[in-house]
Formats: sequence, C-alpha cells, structure tokens
Amino acid sequence: MTKELELLQSIATRRKTVRRFTTEKPPLELVYKALDTACQAPSGSNTQPWRFMIVEDPVVKSRIREAAETGEKVFYETISAERKKKYNAMGHTWKKPMLEKAPILLVVAADATAPNFRPSVWLAVGYLVLALEAVGLGSVTYTPSEAELVRKALGIPDEYTLETILPLGYPADPKDKAPRKPAKELTRVNYWGVPGS
Amino acid sequence: MTKELELLQSIATRRKTVRRFTTEKPPLELVYKALDTACQAPSGSNTQPWRFMIVEDPVVKSRIREAAETGEKVFYETISAERKKKYNAMGHTWKKPMLEKAPILLVVAADATAPNFRPSVWLAVGYLVLALEAVGLGSVTYTPSEAELVRKALGIPDEYTLETILPLGYPADPKDKAPRKPAKELTRVNYWGVPGS
Repeated sequence: MTKELELLQSIATRRKTVRRFTTEKPPLELVYKALDTACQAPSGSNTQPWRFMIVEDPVVKSRIREAAETGEKVFYETISAERKKKYNAMGHTWKKPMLEKAPILLVVAADATAPNFRPSVWLAVGYLVLALEAVGLGSVTYTPSEAELVRKALGIPDEYTLETILPLGYPADPKDKAPRKPAKELTRVNYWGVPGS
Repeated sequence: MTKELELLQSIATRRKTVRRFTTEKPPLELVYKALDTACQAPSGSNTQPWRFMIVEDPVVKSRIREAAETGEKVFYETISAERKKKYNAMGHTWKKPMLEKAPILLVVAADATAPNFRPSVWLAVGYLVLALEAVGLGSVTYTPSEAELVRKALGIPDEYTLETILPLGYPADPKDKAPRKPAKELTRVNYWGVPGS
C-alpha cells in the first residue's frame, strides 16, 4: 500500500459524523483550507458550480434553524410510523439544535444552471469532509427536508439550490462510527450477479 | 498546516481528469483498495447505497460503449449549436472510445430506495477519485446522457440507478489540469452578498 493511500484511508476510516461540538470556535482559516481542497474537485465541463456560505452570526443561525425545523415538522408528519420509529431510534427528530449550537454552519449551494450540478457539488463535498477531518474539524452533512425554505430564508437567489448544511466544530460526540460494509460485498465483476463474483 | 491536510491537498491538487490510458492493465487489488476508502463515506441513515461493477471483459465494455453512444447521439442532436460548439472545443463529441480503450470500467450504481441516495453516492465518488489518484490510477467520472440505456444493457435491476462510469487505468493524457477558482472567491460570510465579504 502506498504511503498516500494509507494516510487517505486512515482519514476516511476514522472520520465519523459529528453532531455535537465543543463551544470553542475554530479559526475560519481552517475552514478555508478545507474549502480550497474541495474546490480542486472535478465538475461537469469544469463549471465548478459549488458556492459556500460560512455562518457564524447567531441571528443567522437561528434563522436557519427556524426554517429547517419548519420543514422537518412537515416531513415528520408525512412519513410512516415505522420510519419515524427508525429515525427516533437513531436519535433523529424534527428538532435540529446543532444548527444553533455548532460554532460554525457551512452552507453549500449549487449553481443550478450548470450541467450535472448536483453530482459535481456532492463529489466536492466528499473532498470537503475528508479535508475537514484532516484539519481536526467534526462535521455532518445535514440536508434539510425542505431545502427551499432555508435557501429563501438566507436570501440565496433562485438560480441556486441549497444542497446541504454542515455544522462544524471540534467534536464532542460520544457516538461511535457507524459500521461500514467492505467494498467486495458491494461489488460485481463483469456481470451483475453474485456480489464479489 | 497539518501534515495530513498537506498530503490530502497535494493529492486533490494534482489529481486531474484522465480520459486516455496506457494499455497496461492495473491489478484489481488497487481498485478494491480505492473502493474500500470510498465505502467509508457517510450516507443518509447509513444506508451505504453505493454499488460497484468492475468491467474488464471487452464484450461487456463494447456493450456499454454502444448503449452510451446511442444516448449521446440523441443528446447531441437536442443541444443548441452554441453548446455543441463549446463541447467540441473541449474535445467532447458523442463518441466515447475510452469506454472500450480503458483497461477497466468502474460502474457506479445507487440503490434508489435509500433516502438521499444520489448525494450519498456522489459524496463517496469524491472519496473514490482521491483514492484512485493515491494508488496511481487515472480516472474520469463519465455520466451517460441516457444512463438508463446503459443500466438496462448491463442488466442492472430497476431499483438501482446508474450514476456514473469511471474508465480507469494508468494515465496517458497529455492535457493539463483545468484551472480552479480559489475557495474565497466562491464563499460568502453570514450574508449572501459580495464574495469573500
């Protein structure tokens, strides 16, 4: 195994979703460093359709939380009792306190006029969460159930979509990393048959 | 800058899209190592909706190329003359010889029954292309204009979507990396106003 792959695998393997943070505010320079890595991602016709908004202002964070929770309440009313139970077991409800409690919210928007803008932006989010881990910042990709409500609350113009919000900070989340299936179990060779065939 | 971030930035910065490959066939073990890194990505409700198909068989590669080009021909007939000119200037036409010439095709499918399956899979593709670079493999995320045609040609069941195909191999592409905008130009702080404000 190359040294580079070893290090990359180590970052990817230890990185887990973090929803609880210490109150210490990380320097914005760390966020910009991670974003510079993300901006190296490929994109359809090199349109680089990612746009970012760093939110530290408590007033703006409250506005985001309010818009997000309005959408989550609607979503939780529409889902089946079974699904709601599953989400509750994972600790998920319509309440999103992390949107106020995280020291930084990183809003990721996409230029919806670019070809394949959604795949491009999410590929870059893959770069981003690895880079955030490398600088010691915990994150979670929270996608509001009604992203349009949040986009409008933030005054982001119509030609953009709000793709996700990453609450950021130093990790204070006691939860372990959720287990992952090894690649071979999810891979076929030449034909869609038995996994690992 | 931490040593980890330095290394990650170096992989991300030098990684460029590769569409031409040497004829040397890379060991499959390298592909599995990169996939194992990709499988560490987060996903909605930890559903891990990514599925992979490694194609080396020339017969299957031809079938993929044929289905993909059938879709591309339709696509290139529908786009504006201006857009077609732009694509031609980038060297893009309906012809996709890389789908036969690359030593390996890595097909990425998604379990479309999972919540937020597309964002989750593309985030993992971000992990994947970095890991491929780390093991020395060139790649391009080629998304067929009519992905359904290719999915059906491969016998991938209806409950999956075909998200992208990555031709893989050792790079033989003389093109430079396309330039990227720095993150600060694409980032707002607290309010959607002047970039870098």
